[in-house]
Formats: sequence, C-alpha cells, structure tokens
Amino acid sequence: MSQPKSKPPLEPEGAVPKAVVNRLSLYLRELLRLVRDGHQTTSSSHLGNLLGFTDAQVRKDLAYFGHFGYPGIGYRCQELIDAIRRILGTDRFWPVAMVGVGNLGRALLGYKGFGQQNFRIVAAFDVAADKIGESIDGVPVHPLDKLTEVVRQQRIKLGMVVVPASSAQTVADKLVAAGVEGIVNFAPVTIVLPPTVNLVGVDLAMELEQLSFAVVNRGNVVPANDD
Amino acid sequence: MSQPKSKPPLEPEGAVPKAVVNRLSLYLRELLRLVRDGHQTTSSSHLGNLLGFTDAQVRKDLAYFGHFGYPGIGYRCQELIDAIRRILGTDRFWPVAMVGVGNLGRALLGYKGFGQQNFRIVAAFDVAADKIGESIDGVPVHPLDKLTEVVRQQRIKLGMVVVPASSAQTVADKLVAAGVEGIVNFAPVTIVLPPTVNLVGVDLAMELEQLSFAVVNRGNVVPANDD
Repeated sequence: MSQPKSKPPLEPEGAVPKAVVNRLSLYLRELLRLVRDGHQTTSSSHLGNLLGFTDAQVRKDLAYFGHFGYPGIGYRCQELIDAIRRILGTDRFWPVAMVGVGNLGRALLGYKGFGQQNFRIVAAFDVAADKIGESIDGVPVHPLDKLTEVVRQQRIKLGMVVVPASSAQTVADKLVAAGVEGIVNFAPVTIVLPPTVNLVGVDLAMELEQLSFAVVNRGNVVPANDD
Repeated sequence: MSQPKSKPPLEPEGAVPKAVVNRLSLYLRELLRLVRDGHQTTSSSHLGNLLGFTDAQVRKDLAYFGHFGYPGIGYRCQELIDAIRRILGTDRFWPVAMVGVGNLGRALLGYKGFGQQNFRIVAAFDVAADKIGESIDGVPVHPLDKLTEVVRQQRIKLGMVVVPASSAQTVADKLVAAGVEGIVNFAPVTIVLPPTVNLVGVDLAMELEQLSFAVVNRGNVVPANDD
C-alpha cells in the first residue's frame, strides 16, 4: 500500500500459481496490441473480454504483484506493459542456447517472436560436422562438446532442447551442468531435471488435442477461469 | 452411476474448463510413459506427483467425464489412456491442413508428435510457385487458391496457420470459409475468428517467459493446481 503506484513491485508477495504467470504473458500480448491500435488505457473487463476471462480474474491475477489500476481511468496500457515485463523478467535481455539444428531448430533461429520479448538465441549446438561452423540467421553453430564452455562464457541461463527424443535427456543434463536454470524441451519425450531447474515441455500435438476436444464437444468448453 | 466402469462416457456432463482439457493431454502423456515403462496400474496421487498436481486435482479433473478408478487398484493405465483418447476425440484420425511452407512449416511436416496422437497433415498450401507441386515428408504442397476445394474434398476440420503475421487473418478466414472448425495459429499476431471456430495461438516466446519469471522469482512459483 505504501508502494507508489508508478513503481509496482517486481517480486510477488507470495507463491504464484503457474497458470497466473501464463496469463501474464497473455495480458502482455493483448496490451501490446491495444497500444499498437492506439489505446492508452484499458480496464480489467476489457482486457478480460479480449481473452475470455472475467474482470475479477484479471484483477486477482495482477493483485499478486501490486496495484496497477487508477480510479476512473483503469490501467494505463504502457505502464502495465512495463510492469508485466519487469515481473516476467523480460525487461532485461536473455541470451538463450539452442541444441539441435534440424528443421525445427532452423525455424526457431528465424522465429521473430523471441526478439520481441527480449530473448535471443546466441549460440546453437549440433553434433553434425556439416552444420558446425555454419552461421544461421547470424547465430553460430558450435560443436556440442563446446557447450559447457560457451554457456559459461556467455552466462546463458536459458536453453532449448531441439534434438531427437533419444538424446534429449543427455543434452538437458549437459545444459544444467553448464549452469542453465531453465529449459524448453521440444523433444517428444519427458525429461527429468533437478528441482532447482525449471522445465517447460512443448508438445505441439497438445494444441491440436484442445481443438479436437472442442470439435467433438461443441458448447461444452468454457474459457479457463482458474488460478 | 449406472454407467458401467468399462465404458466411460465420451461426453462430459457439463461445461469443462479449458485448463482441464489441457491437463487431460498431460495425463495422457504420463500414462503412455507409464505403460512404456511396464506399469499396468497407477493412482491419482502417483499421476499427480509426476506432474506436480494434487491427487484431488487429478480425481476432480477425471470426474468431469466419468468414474475411472477401481477400489484397491487405482486406474488401469491402458483403460484410462483409451478413455482420455475417446474424450479428446483422438481415438479417431484427424486430417489437418497446413498453410505456409517456410522453415517452421517444414519442421511441422516432419514433427513426429502429431502422428502419435492421430493427427496427420494431409495437405499443405503456399503461394510460392517454387514450392507448389513439391511433396514434403509425403505431404503435397498445393497452391493457396486450391484451399477451399481440397479442404472440402478431404473433409478437413483442423488447420494450422504458419504464414507471416501480415497474412495470418486472411488465411484463417479462408480456412473457416472452407469448413475448418479449429485453428492453431503459429503466426506472431492475434487473429479473430467467429465464436463457432476454436482457436489456439502458439507463441513460443511465452514458454521462455515462464522460465525467465521462474529464474527471477526462485521459490515463488507453485505448480498449477486450478480448474
């Protein structure tokens, strides 16, 4: 309460459910779109409407991190964008290491969405001799056995595993040993990491499953409204 | 209650929150892994433990769809796998149309995870003359203006938009007009669809944001435990 409204705290007051963090990413994207469309302010009900959440949900999610609204005005879009970026840590630059330069790896190297949120793949790794030494979209491809050295030198904290299922665990272990604290796993296999390391698995078939469920259960799905 | 335990209903009794459907996909993957590892049965607490949910959460999620546990046994893994597949609609084959054959599109055409869940990209579309007529991983690349014809002919209900942001909305509209009922959007832009069409947006930077948040807020994140 003594916190001035213009400087919302970076750190939440208590433990935050993962689903809340996920929704912050969604709010951020809608706010960026609102600003692009010329809006300066918004409200919890407007923001909620855009995403299919209630206004109460939006207020409850943001309340984990401070007080962002102004009476009679609502939220100032750019201010809330800046606050969410501070909360998510994306107000700073994050170098990322990527292991595996197949089709998906190449696509990720060219993916524009990372840079927009301050993530940049700065080093790629592979075992194939014909890929090593290559530079793809400006990112150098190193031999896998240089991983520890490069990750430590560039103080890389985030890694992406884009190798076949059979080598995903080995590669993830290498990243962790080198000092990486968060891993996105694109390999279609479950990997196990020490509890201090954060893991997000990307399984693209899961998105399609949400759709097949919705198609076979028309009218029986409600938007996520949980915390 | 009169439902025999061996035939859980396909249709939920009421509206199901999206987060529950998402967790069904996660349960399915852990169950498949358990079966691969030789387990025949599991319990709500074991399944919950593997994913960081409580046993109550697991039971509550499954209760939307029927009664799956056996006293003194727990869940029979293969039976629950079959039930979840029936619920998600992935006990049947889903042909998928993909628009945009860039790096990411090519990666998706080779992505093994789709076939494992009964999704298959059967037709790809692009506007680039040098791609049209090509066959990638056995999938023909058609000119974009054949989209309506091919989607109708093959009764395709699911589509993936893998084009640049500037053409994502136009392409999505075309898919909907052709009869597609669910769309996964990989373009880094928000698209708007009629309420009867289901939309899932994939923004790969969001996964990294979950990690950057976790790295800057060590110990302040709890697993999703909501419904």
